[in-house]
Amino acid sequence: MPPAETSAEAVDVTALLERGRTLSTPVLRAAVDRLAPPMDTVAAYHFGWIDALGNPADGDGGKAVRPALALLSAEAAGAPPETGVPGAVAVELVHNFSLLHDDLMDGDEQRRHRDTVWKVHGPAQAILVGDALFALAGEVLLELGTVEAGRATRRLTRASRALIDGQAQDISYEHRERVTVEECLEMEGNKTGALLACASSIGAVLGGADDRTADSLERFGHHLGLAFQAIDDVLGIWGDPEATGKQTWSDLRQRKKSLPVVAALAAGGSASEELGELLAADAKSNDFDSFSETEFAVRAALIEAAGGREWTNQEARRQHTVAIEALNSVDMPERVRAQLTALADFVVVRKR
Amino acid sequence: MPPAETSAEAVDVTALLERGRTLSTPVLRAAVDRLAPPMDTVAAYHFGWIDALGNPADGDGGKAVRPALALLSAEAAGAPPETGVPGAVAVELVHNFSLLHDDLMDGDEQRRHRDTVWKVHGPAQAILVGDALFALAGEVLLELGTVEAGRATRRLTRASRALIDGQAQDISYEHRERVTVEECLEMEGNKTGALLACASSIGAVLGGADDRTADSLERFGHHLGLAFQAIDDVLGIWGDPEATGKQTWSDLRQRKKSLPVVAALAAGGSASEELGELLAADAKSNDFDSFSETEFAVRAALIEAAGGREWTNQEARRQHTVAIEALNSVDMPERVRAQLTALADFVVVRKR
Repeated sequence: MPPAETSAEAVDVTALLERGRTLSTPVLRAAVDRLAPPMDTVAAYHFGWIDALGNPADGDGGKAVRPALALLSAEAAGAPPETGVPGAVAVELVHNFSLLHDDLMDGDEQRRHRDTVWKVHGPAQAILVGDALFALAGEVLLELGTVEAGRATRRLTRASRALIDGQAQDISYEHRERVTVEECLEMEGNKTGALLACASSIGAVLGGADDRTADSLERFGHHLGLAFQAIDDVLGIWGDPEATGKQTWSDLRQRKKSLPVVAALAAGGSASEELGELLAADAKSNDFDSFSETEFAVRAALIEAAGGREWTNQEARRQHTVAIEALNSVDMPERVRAQLTALADFVVVRKR
Repeated sequence: MPPAETSAEAVDVTALLERGRTLSTPVLRAAVDRLAPPMDTVAAYHFGWIDALGNPADGDGGKAVRPALALLSAEAAGAPPETGVPGAVAVELVHNFSLLHDDLMDGDEQRRHRDTVWKVHGPAQAILVGDALFALAGEVLLELGTVEAGRATRRLTRASRALIDGQAQDISYEHRERVTVEECLEMEGNKTGALLACASSIGAVLGGADDRTADSLERFGHHLGLAFQAIDDVLGIWGDPEATGKQTWSDLRQRKKSLPVVAALAAGGSASEELGELLAADAKSNDFDSFSETEFAVRAALIEAAGGREWTNQEARRQHTVAIEALNSVDMPERVRAQLTALADFVVVRKR
């Protein structure tokens, strides 16, 4: 029987997330400080380090799952967690590059309870600072000057392209009446899976892991990302606004064709058909923006009645299982495996 | 006396530009073909390979100075020109990423005699495809999998950040009444110098040149870029619309604080003062968009009378001289030196 500290139940996930944040944030801030004014200020606002007036803030920097994964992946390859730090920072830079550009393209006015960058500083700054963060990600890795850094950057670049593909798909789906479950999963694999895949392997690559190990860790992260996104899609409709920082029925208000919606539409049966007719009418409606809470609640109830909520929760569990299988195909210290498993478990039970 | 084929006068610059285009375009097109629809189509439109309806076109792809430089820089390091091709392609991808984003930020509706991407395909596609081309640039280099590719990508990333800094400066200067000559040169060094510096060294880096050689070639390209931009600034006011593909007095219409303008304003004297008063009034004017040809001609004449045109032409020659000095500090085959010199000469005498 393994010692107690190697079982996933005994792992302190909060401490793992905190370690990722503590080790990576100073390096991230130093990287962002390299930006020329006013881009440094705009980026600091985006990350929640200052408010719109430039005063120091202690904003909600997110859950920091990615940095925690990057550090653990270094340890999975037998390297110290610090080896993963440039990878954690590069992944965070790419993630935030995509948030800056996506919020502008999608016209989203709020993120993490605050006005988005394009809303506060204008579209040009959102484009420019996004570009600059993307470039910084490559800089942070490549200035390590090692062969491993080149390999890590190549993987990060591939993940970045997937992110961009996913956003392109997301935009094109908005204009379509029907999206299949497969198309939705492909889009979410690009938008969320690819970067979690990179976060879960980049530390190992920097630590000298071979391609096979890195590929398996990527597979773990990819399916973990799909599990993460499935939960996000459930929270996007039924999440508590206090916890998520989003409006009630947030994804329904944005007419997002997220997993619960496409699964409910694909399910067949009376609730599914009624939902389909309502959403088709909504797409043509001029009054959509003035819909009441009740009208969204009706749609959410139909999605649930058609099985969309339950299917998506099950999908999260399915992806979680595949992720753990991939993790278990990699040879690594049992303590690290338990920690990665605990982090994966955390992702599928989170409430925000 | 060196043999005839090594003197810059005897070099066929058109053939050098054509070689750069012929070797790099197929690789560039193959890279762009990797983009997922509809981004591949949008990118093909941007490069002029298809028209807005999707029909094949033989668009004006630009002068292709950068690819020619990248191939010659490989030869400067003793490598075959083909070694520079991935570098040429990566530089072109970064250049076009910046054009896509800058045109959107600046609201420019025309480029190379055609509507810009954001005008035809919308802002979201301009952002997305720009992002994708930027990512592709790293991919094209890093999939070579060599130490040299990592070094080349690091230099390209640094140049990309300078491009972004330059665009940020350009935007901030638009809102200011006065910009100094030094500030204008710094901005142009970032917007034009950095990427020509990279184009002039990236082939050598891929060919295994040491950092000192690469730095000297970067210096050559940087000053060549400043010479190029000075000529561009002259053409932006006094260029023949038929040749440049821009409107008459193009930069004046856009209120650009280009070198002839800032030099004229800094010169002092009656024409300089009169110009200053006119431009200050223009900045507050509501009728600016309905200005006649004559009103722009008056401003252009004042800039010329204050010495702004002559100063900028001299600045192009000064930067050209510094570029050639940097070139001559590098040990390379005399044939290649003559070709790089001829290309540099071409840049400062061009009419478009």
